[in-house]
Amino acid sequence: MNFLEERILADGVIKPGNVLKVDSFLNHQIDVALIDQMAKEFKRRFADKPITKVLTIETSGIAIAYAVAREFGVPMVFAKKSKSVNLDGEMHVAEVESFTHKKTNKVVVAKKYISPEDHVLIVDDFLANGCALQGLISIVDSAEASVEGLGIAIEKGFQEGGYRIRNLGYHLESLAIVESMDAETGKITFREEL
Amino acid sequence: MNFLEERILADGVIKPGNVLKVDSFLNHQIDVALIDQMAKEFKRRFADKPITKVLTIETSGIAIAYAVAREFGVPMVFAKKSKSVNLDGEMHVAEVESFTHKKTNKVVVAKKYISPEDHVLIVDDFLANGCALQGLISIVDSAEASVEGLGIAIEKGFQEGGYRIRNLGYHLESLAIVESMDAETGKITFREEL
Repeated sequence: MNFLEERILADGVIKPGNVLKVDSFLNHQIDVALIDQMAKEFKRRFADKPITKVLTIETSGIAIAYAVAREFGVPMVFAKKSKSVNLDGEMHVAEVESFTHKKTNKVVVAKKYISPEDHVLIVDDFLANGCALQGLISIVDSAEASVEGLGIAIEKGFQEGGYRIRNLGYHLESLAIVESMDAETGKITFREEL
Repeated sequence: MNFLEERILADGVIKPGNVLKVDSFLNHQIDVALIDQMAKEFKRRFADKPITKVLTIETSGIAIAYAVAREFGVPMVFAKKSKSVNLDGEMHVAEVESFTHKKTNKVVVAKKYISPEDHVLIVDDFLANGCALQGLISIVDSAEASVEGLGIAIEKGFQEGGYRIRNLGYHLESLAIVESMDAETGKITFREEL
């Protein structure tokens, strides 16, 4: 079991409806040393990739993406959620369905911050059905830049996002893949690393 | 002129209505080295304070607050904007008016992440009318914790937030205080440091 899986077992809280709360260290209160350790692990896993930019989506991916960008010595960009329909043509736009909030968001990145020369590492805290990640991939595609990989803190292995994205041929690395969790017993099972 | 003021002059863009766009390095694309330098400067300015927690508000304060928390070796907490009225009593809540978006948000922090023993450094990217900061101050007050200081990247010195917060006796440090800016000529004047 790796350091993140251990931390999830120690401090994660399972709620009914397959909700895993990691508020105490990942997405409300943030354990800086843990995030730094995650960033170093992503650096190790994508060490052979010529990353020029780290891309995430607001809000809870920002701290992780910042730490990863720091490891690679490149800028970080975060996509913004936007309700505005008056986008001025200077933005890459993707539609993203939010599983948690049951609505569709427009997600935007200013064109000038991702260009065709960029080699992008996409980073986020959670991967469930993969809609947010697919939105980010489509933004990188619109920019004619290349997606070098995707780094996720916690993947819900029992939802289809990870399967779908790996199936498309992307290099996806999740530090912890939850195979199953049970709100009644509190038991969490992780996918074994190969 | 300090490093942040120089960067604002080089890459900031003034838009009509006293809008200063710093999208290229601070709140859409993020220059990691610049943020790290800002964090070190905040560490220097609040070096004598027994900081136990860094508090910010989503979204664009997160990367800066993360870097500052890293310098102090303490956890970071970000307050969340919430439309939900069904808050379950486990949250500190403040009402914050958004000047940019002309609406009122509820801002919440889970009670367990700020306790009476905490010495809090509040960090944000911008200070204009001060509503967001006053919301964060009121959350720290609700927790009966102490506000040790407030660290801001860019203060709009021609709006009243900074005046009001210093007047309340808080130790507020802004790395760049814009005294005036002119969208037509592109000229920006900073307040001289003492």
